[in-house]
Amino acid sequence: MKELYFITGNKGKVAEIQQRVKDLDIKIIQKDIGYPEIQAETLQEVALFGADHIQKKINKPFILEDAGIFIDELGGFPGVYSKFVFYTIGLSGILKIMENKTKRSAVFRSVYAYTEPNKKPVLFIGECFGTLTEKKKGSKGFGYDPLFIPNGEKKTFAEVDIDKKNKISHRGKALDKLFEFLEKS
Amino acid sequence: MKELYFITGNKGKVAEIQQRVKDLDIKIIQKDIGYPEIQAETLQEVALFGADHIQKKINKPFILEDAGIFIDELGGFPGVYSKFVFYTIGLSGILKIMENKTKRSAVFRSVYAYTEPNKKPVLFIGECFGTLTEKKKGSKGFGYDPLFIPNGEKKTFAEVDIDKKNKISHRGKALDKLFEFLEKS
Repeated sequence: MKELYFITGNKGKVAEIQQRVKDLDIKIIQKDIGYPEIQAETLQEVALFGADHIQKKINKPFILEDAGIFIDELGGFPGVYSKFVFYTIGLSGILKIMENKTKRSAVFRSVYAYTEPNKKPVLFIGECFGTLTEKKKGSKGFGYDPLFIPNGEKKTFAEVDIDKKNKISHRGKALDKLFEFLEKS
Repeated sequence: MKELYFITGNKGKVAEIQQRVKDLDIKIIQKDIGYPEIQAETLQEVALFGADHIQKKINKPFILEDAGIFIDELGGFPGVYSKFVFYTIGLSGILKIMENKTKRSAVFRSVYAYTEPNKKPVLFIGECFGTLTEKKKGSKGFGYDPLFIPNGEKKTFAEVDIDKKNKISHRGKALDKLFEFLEKS
Protein backbone atom coordinates (compact mmCIF):
# COMPACT_ATOMS: atom_id res chain seq x y z
CA MET A 1 0.00 0.00 0.00
CA LYS A 2 1.32 3.38 -1.01
CA GLU A 3 1.62 5.92 1.78
CA LEU A 4 0.96 9.56 1.03
CA TYR A 5 1.38 12.40 3.50
CA PHE A 6 -1.31 15.08 3.29
CA ILE A 7 0.02 18.36 4.67
CA THR A 8 -3.02 20.13 6.06
CA GLY A 9 -4.76 21.21 9.21
CA ASN A 10 -8.19 21.01 7.58
CA LYS A 11 -10.15 17.99 8.79
CA GLY A 12 -12.85 18.54 6.15
CA LYS A 13 -10.31 18.07 3.37
CA VAL A 14 -8.97 14.95 5.05
CA ALA A 15 -12.47 13.49 5.35
CA GLU A 16 -13.07 14.11 1.65
CA ILE A 17 -9.87 12.42 0.51
CA GLN A 18 -10.29 9.46 2.92
CA GLN A 19 -13.71 8.83 1.40
CA ARG A 20 -12.21 9.17 -2.06
CA VAL A 21 -9.36 6.65 -1.58
CA LYS A 22 -11.24 4.01 0.36
CA ASP A 23 -11.22 1.58 -2.59
CA LEU A 24 -7.71 2.46 -3.73
CA ASP A 25 -4.36 1.06 -2.65
CA ILE A 26 -3.36 4.35 -1.03
CA LYS A 27 -3.07 5.28 2.62
CA ILE A 28 -3.46 8.97 3.44
CA ILE A 29 -1.61 10.19 6.51
CA GLN A 30 -2.52 13.66 7.71
CA LYS A 31 0.43 15.83 8.77
CA ASP A 32 -0.63 19.05 10.38
CA ILE A 33 2.64 20.93 9.94
CA GLY A 34 2.35 24.46 8.71
CA TYR A 35 4.02 26.01 5.70
CA PRO A 36 4.22 29.60 4.51
CA GLU A 37 1.37 30.50 2.19
CA ILE A 38 2.34 33.44 0.03
CA GLN A 39 0.06 36.25 -1.06
CA ALA A 40 -0.39 35.62 -4.76
CA GLU A 41 -2.96 35.91 -7.49
CA THR A 42 -3.23 32.21 -8.12
CA LEU A 43 -3.59 29.08 -6.04
CA GLN A 44 -0.87 27.51 -8.18
CA GLU A 45 1.73 29.95 -6.87
CA VAL A 46 0.64 29.34 -3.28
CA ALA A 47 0.75 25.55 -3.68
CA LEU A 48 4.15 25.54 -5.42
CA PHE A 49 5.74 27.78 -2.82
CA GLY A 50 4.36 25.59 -0.03
CA ALA A 51 5.50 22.36 -1.71
CA ASP A 52 9.04 23.70 -2.17
CA HIS A 53 9.11 24.56 1.52
CA ILE A 54 7.81 21.19 2.75
CA GLN A 55 10.07 19.25 0.38
CA LYS A 56 13.06 20.53 2.35
CA LYS A 57 11.58 19.04 5.52
CA ILE A 58 10.01 15.75 4.50
CA ASN A 59 11.73 12.96 2.61
CA LYS A 60 8.51 11.18 1.58
CA PRO A 61 5.91 11.65 -1.14
CA PHE A 62 3.37 14.22 0.01
CA ILE A 63 0.45 16.27 -1.19
CA LEU A 64 -0.86 19.62 -0.16
CA GLU A 65 -3.82 21.54 -1.46
CA ASP A 66 -4.94 25.11 -1.77
CA ALA A 67 -8.47 26.05 -2.74
CA GLY A 68 -10.68 29.06 -2.97
CA ILE A 69 -13.86 30.49 -4.35
CA PHE A 70 -13.61 33.23 -6.96
CA ILE A 71 -16.68 35.46 -7.35
CA ASP A 72 -16.89 37.07 -10.80
CA GLU A 73 -18.81 40.16 -9.70
CA LEU A 74 -16.16 40.86 -7.04
CA GLY A 75 -13.10 40.59 -9.28
CA GLY A 76 -12.20 37.15 -7.99
CA PHE A 77 -12.66 37.97 -4.29
CA PRO A 78 -12.14 36.16 -1.91
CA GLY A 79 -10.00 33.84 -4.10
CA VAL A 80 -6.65 32.91 -2.64
CA TYR A 81 -7.71 34.48 0.69
CA SER A 82 -10.94 32.52 1.04
CA LYS A 83 -9.97 31.06 4.41
CA PHE A 84 -9.08 34.43 5.92
CA VAL A 85 -12.26 36.03 4.60
CA PHE A 86 -14.31 33.11 5.92
CA TYR A 87 -12.91 33.61 9.42
CA THR A 88 -13.34 37.40 9.42
CA ILE A 89 -16.37 38.74 7.54
CA GLY A 90 -17.72 35.21 7.05
CA LEU A 91 -20.57 34.01 4.85
CA SER A 92 -22.82 36.80 6.12
CA GLY A 93 -20.27 39.36 4.94
CA ILE A 94 -20.16 37.76 1.50
CA LEU A 95 -23.95 37.73 1.29
CA LYS A 96 -24.03 41.37 2.36
CA ILE A 97 -21.62 42.46 -0.40
CA MET A 98 -23.60 40.40 -2.91
CA GLU A 99 -26.96 41.82 -1.82
CA ASN A 100 -29.05 42.85 -4.84
CA LYS A 101 -26.32 41.72 -7.26
CA THR A 102 -27.81 39.83 -10.18
CA LYS A 103 -24.53 38.45 -11.55
CA ARG A 104 -23.86 35.68 -9.04
CA SER A 105 -21.53 33.35 -10.93
CA ALA A 106 -18.53 31.96 -9.10
CA VAL A 107 -15.95 29.24 -9.48
CA PHE A 108 -14.43 26.98 -6.85
CA ARG A 109 -10.83 26.10 -7.65
CA SER A 110 -8.59 23.50 -6.09
CA VAL A 111 -4.90 22.89 -6.73
CA TYR A 112 -3.16 19.79 -5.42
CA ALA A 113 0.62 19.73 -5.41
CA TYR A 114 2.09 16.21 -5.43
CA THR A 115 5.76 16.05 -4.53
CA GLU A 116 8.30 13.25 -4.38
CA PRO A 117 11.76 13.62 -2.86
CA ASN A 118 14.19 15.36 -5.24
CA LYS A 119 11.53 15.92 -7.88
CA LYS A 120 9.66 19.02 -8.89
CA PRO A 121 6.11 19.30 -7.56
CA VAL A 122 3.35 18.34 -10.01
CA LEU A 123 0.13 20.36 -9.91
CA PHE A 124 -3.42 19.09 -10.47
CA ILE A 125 -6.14 21.65 -10.94
CA GLY A 126 -9.88 21.17 -10.54
CA GLU A 127 -12.65 23.68 -11.14
CA CYS A 128 -16.34 23.74 -10.37
CA PHE A 129 -18.48 26.51 -11.83
CA GLY A 130 -21.71 27.56 -10.21
CA THR A 131 -23.74 30.36 -8.65
CA LEU A 132 -24.05 31.91 -5.22
CA THR A 133 -27.26 31.52 -3.27
CA GLU A 134 -28.93 34.46 -1.54
CA LYS A 135 -28.88 32.77 1.82
CA LYS A 136 -27.09 29.88 3.52
CA LYS A 137 -28.41 26.42 2.72
CA GLY A 138 -27.35 23.13 4.29
CA SER A 139 -25.02 22.13 7.09
CA LYS A 140 -22.66 19.58 5.53
CA GLY A 141 -19.20 20.26 4.17
CA PHE A 142 -17.30 23.33 5.32
CA GLY A 143 -16.35 26.87 4.34
CA TYR A 144 -18.38 28.36 1.52
CA ASP A 145 -20.32 25.14 0.78
CA PRO A 146 -23.68 26.53 2.08
CA LEU A 147 -23.57 29.37 -0.50
CA PHE A 148 -22.58 27.46 -3.64
CA ILE A 149 -24.78 25.60 -6.12
CA PRO A 150 -22.78 23.91 -8.91
CA ASN A 151 -24.06 24.46 -12.44
CA GLY A 152 -26.64 21.82 -13.36
CA GLU A 153 -27.45 21.10 -9.72
CA LYS A 154 -30.22 22.33 -7.43
CA LYS A 155 -28.60 21.87 -4.05
CA THR A 156 -25.65 23.58 -2.41
CA PHE A 157 -22.48 21.66 -1.56
CA ALA A 158 -23.66 21.78 2.05
CA GLU A 159 -26.88 19.94 1.20
CA VAL A 160 -25.30 16.88 -0.44
CA ASP A 161 -23.32 13.92 0.88
CA ILE A 162 -19.54 13.82 0.70
CA ASP A 163 -19.72 11.13 -2.03
CA LYS A 164 -21.88 13.31 -4.24
CA LYS A 165 -19.74 16.36 -3.56
CA ASN A 166 -16.54 14.49 -4.44
CA LYS A 167 -18.00 13.53 -7.83
CA ILE A 168 -18.57 17.08 -8.97
CA SER A 169 -16.46 19.33 -6.80
CA HIS A 170 -13.30 21.21 -7.72
CA ARG A 171 -11.39 19.15 -5.19
CA GLY A 172 -12.87 15.90 -6.48
CA LYS A 173 -11.81 16.78 -10.02
CA ALA A 174 -8.29 17.70 -8.96
CA LEU A 175 -8.08 14.41 -7.05
CA ASP A 176 -9.27 12.46 -10.11
CA LYS A 177 -6.32 13.88 -12.03
CA LEU A 178 -3.93 13.19 -9.18
CA PHE A 179 -4.96 9.55 -8.78
CA GLU A 180 -4.91 8.97 -12.53
CA PHE A 181 -1.33 10.28 -12.50
CA LEU A 182 -0.38 8.06 -9.54
CA GLU A 183 -1.79 4.95 -11.22
CA LYS A 184 0.35 5.54 -14.28
CA SER A 185 3.54 6.38 -12.42
CA MET B 1 24.32 61.61 2.53
CA LYS B 2 22.99 58.23 3.54
CA GLU B 3 21.37 56.22 0.76
CA LEU B 4 18.45 53.99 1.61
CA TYR B 5 16.69 51.68 -0.81
CA PHE B 6 12.92 51.55 -0.42
CA ILE B 7 11.61 48.26 -1.81
CA THR B 8 8.11 49.06 -3.01
CA GLY B 9 5.94 49.53 -6.05
CA ASN B 10 3.64 51.98 -4.25
CA LYS B 11 4.24 55.56 -5.40
CA GLY B 12 1.99 56.92 -2.64
CA LYS B 13 4.31 55.48 0.01
CA VAL B 14 7.34 56.89 -1.78
CA ALA B 15 5.77 60.36 -1.95
CA GLU B 16 5.06 60.23 1.79
CA ILE B 17 8.62 59.28 2.74
CA GLN B 18 10.22 61.77 0.32
CA GLN B 19 8.23 64.53 1.99
CA ARG B 20 9.26 63.18 5.38
CA VAL B 21 13.04 63.09 4.70
CA LYS B 22 13.37 66.36 2.80
CA ASP B 23 15.18 68.04 5.70
CA LEU B 24 17.20 64.99 6.68
CA ASP B 25 20.55 63.75 5.41
CA ILE B 26 18.95 60.70 3.82
CA LYS B 27 18.35 59.90 0.17
CA ILE B 28 15.51 57.48 -0.56
CA ILE B 29 15.88 55.39 -3.72
CA GLN B 30 12.78 53.48 -4.79
CA LYS B 31 13.41 49.93 -5.96
CA ASP B 32 10.37 48.32 -7.46
CA ILE B 33 11.50 44.71 -7.14
CA GLY B 34 8.94 42.28 -5.84
CA TYR B 35 9.26 39.96 -2.89
CA PRO B 36 7.02 37.17 -1.64
CA GLU B 37 4.43 38.39 0.84
CA ILE B 38 3.24 35.55 3.01
CA GLN B 39 -0.27 35.03 4.26
CA ALA B 40 0.01 35.71 7.96
CA GLU B 41 -1.94 37.19 10.83
CA THR B 42 0.43 40.07 11.41
CA LEU B 43 2.18 42.66 9.28
CA GLN B 44 5.34 41.92 11.25
CA GLU B 45 5.53 38.39 9.87
CA VAL B 46 4.96 39.64 6.32
CA ALA B 47 7.64 42.34 6.63
CA LEU B 48 10.21 39.99 8.20
CA PHE B 49 9.73 37.31 5.58
CA GLY B 50 10.08 39.91 2.81
CA ALA B 51 13.18 41.46 4.37
CA ASP B 52 14.89 38.07 4.68
CA HIS B 53 14.17 37.46 1.01
CA ILE B 54 15.45 40.85 -0.21
CA GLN B 55 18.54 40.68 1.99
CA LYS B 56 19.76 37.74 -0.09
CA LYS B 57 19.54 39.89 -3.22
CA ILE B 58 20.67 43.36 -2.18
CA ASN B 59 23.93 44.20 -0.43
CA LYS B 60 22.84 47.67 0.73
CA PRO B 61 20.75 49.04 3.58
CA PHE B 62 17.10 48.93 2.61
CA ILE B 63 13.63 49.38 4.00
CA LEU B 64 10.32 47.84 3.10
CA GLU B 65 6.94 48.43 4.58
CA ASP B 66 3.69 46.58 5.02
CA ALA B 67 0.52 48.26 6.16
CA GLY B 68 -3.13 47.55 6.56
CA ILE B 69 -6.36 48.64 8.14
CA PHE B 70 -7.91 46.42 10.80
CA ILE B 71 -11.65 46.87 11.38
CA ASP B 72 -12.71 45.76 14.86
CA GLU B 73 -16.30 44.83 13.93
CA LEU B 74 -14.96 42.56 11.15
CA GLY B 75 -12.43 40.62 13.21
CA GLY B 76 -9.50 42.56 11.82
CA PHE B 77 -10.58 42.33 8.18
CA PRO B 78 -9.08 43.36 5.73
CA GLY B 79 -5.84 43.56 7.77
CA VAL B 80 -2.82 41.99 6.12
CA TYR B 81 -4.84 41.63 2.89
CA SER B 82 -5.89 45.28 2.66
CA LYS B 83 -4.35 45.75 -0.79
CA PHE B 84 -6.06 42.71 -2.28
CA VAL B 85 -9.41 43.66 -0.77
CA PHE B 86 -9.00 47.23 -2.04
CA TYR B 87 -8.49 45.97 -5.59
CA THR B 88 -11.38 43.47 -5.48
CA ILE B 89 -14.40 44.54 -3.44
CA GLY B 90 -12.96 48.03 -2.95
CA LEU B 91 -14.12 50.81 -0.65
CA SER B 92 -17.71 50.33 -1.75
CA GLY B 93 -17.54 46.69 -0.65
CA ILE B 94 -16.20 47.71 2.76
CA LEU B 95 -18.95 50.32 3.15
CA LYS B 96 -21.52 47.73 2.17
CA ILE B 97 -20.38 45.24 4.82
CA MET B 98 -20.29 48.05 7.38
CA GLU B 99 -23.77 49.31 6.47
CA ASN B 100 -25.82 49.94 9.62
CA LYS B 101 -22.96 48.86 11.89
CA THR B 102 -22.62 51.20 14.83
CA LYS B 103 -19.22 49.95 16.02
CA ARG B 104 -16.95 51.57 13.40
CA SER B 105 -13.58 51.65 15.15
CA ALA B 106 -10.52 50.65 13.14
CA VAL B 107 -6.77 50.88 13.34
CA PHE B 108 -4.27 51.56 10.59
CA ARG B 109 -1.00 49.73 11.18
CA SER B 110 2.35 50.14 9.48
CA VAL B 111 5.48 48.07 9.91
CA TYR B 112 8.79 49.17 8.46
CA ALA B 113 11.61 46.66 8.27
CA TYR B 114 15.07 48.23 8.15
CA THR B 115 17.80 45.86 7.07
CA GLU B 116 21.57 46.18 6.73
CA PRO B 117 23.77 43.58 5.05
CA ASN B 118 24.48 40.60 7.34
CA LYS B 119 22.29 41.94 10.13
CA LYS B 120 18.85 40.94 11.29
CA PRO B 121 16.00 43.18 10.13
CA VAL B 122 14.77 45.71 12.70
CA LEU B 123 11.02 46.44 12.80
CA PHE B 124 9.35 49.77 13.52
CA ILE B 125 5.62 49.73 14.15
CA GLY B 126 3.20 52.65 13.94
CA GLU B 127 -0.51 52.67 14.71
CA CYS B 128 -3.26 55.17 14.14
CA PHE B 129 -6.65 54.57 15.76
CA GLY B 130 -9.81 56.03 14.31
CA THR B 131 -13.26 55.41 12.92
CA LEU B 132 -14.72 54.53 9.54
CA THR B 133 -16.90 57.05 7.74
CA GLU B 134 -20.22 56.07 6.17
CA LYS B 135 -19.18 57.33 2.76
CA LYS B 136 -15.98 58.25 0.92
CA LYS B 137 -14.57 61.68 1.73
CA GLY B 138 -11.62 63.40 0.04
CA SER B 139 -9.38 62.59 -2.89
CA LYS B 140 -5.84 62.83 -1.50
CA GLY B 141 -3.68 59.94 -0.31
CA PHE B 142 -4.47 56.41 -1.48
CA GLY B 143 -6.13 53.16 -0.47
CA TYR B 144 -8.49 53.41 2.47
CA ASP B 145 -7.69 57.06 3.24
CA PRO B 146 -11.16 58.36 2.15
CA LEU B 147 -12.87 56.14 4.76
CA PHE B 148 -10.70 56.81 7.80
CA ILE B 149 -10.92 59.63 10.35
CA PRO B 150 -8.16 59.45 13.00
CA ASN B 151 -9.30 59.86 16.61
CA GLY B 152 -9.31 63.53 17.61
CA GLU B 153 -9.62 64.69 13.98
CA LYS B 154 -12.59 65.73 11.87
CA LYS B 155 -11.27 65.01 8.40
CA THR B 156 -10.35 61.77 6.66
CA PHE B 157 -6.77 61.04 5.61
CA ALA B 158 -7.91 61.83 2.05
CA GLU B 159 -8.96 65.34 3.03
CA VAL B 160 -5.63 66.49 4.54
CA ASP B 161 -2.24 67.32 3.07
CA ILE B 162 0.60 64.83 3.06
CA ASP B 163 2.44 66.87 5.74
CA LYS B 164 -0.51 66.70 8.08
CA LYS B 165 -1.07 63.01 7.36
CA ASN B 166 2.59 62.20 8.06
CA LYS B 167 2.36 63.83 11.48
CA ILE B 168 -0.44 61.60 12.73
CA SER B 169 -0.53 58.55 10.50
CA HIS B 170 0.54 54.99 11.30
CA ARG B 171 3.22 55.26 8.63
CA GLY B 172 4.41 58.61 9.93
CA LYS B 173 4.76 57.19 13.43
CA ALA B 174 6.66 54.13 12.22
CA LEU B 175 8.97 56.44 10.23
CA ASP B 176 9.56 58.61 13.31
CA LYS B 177 10.84 55.53 15.11
CA LEU B 178 12.92 54.46 12.12
CA PHE B 179 14.62 57.84 11.71
CA GLU B 180 15.24 58.15 15.44
CA PHE B 181 16.97 54.76 15.27
CA LEU B 182 19.02 55.80 12.22
CA GLU B 183 20.18 59.00 13.89
CA LYS B 184 21.50 57.05 16.86
CA SER B 185 23.19 54.31 14.88
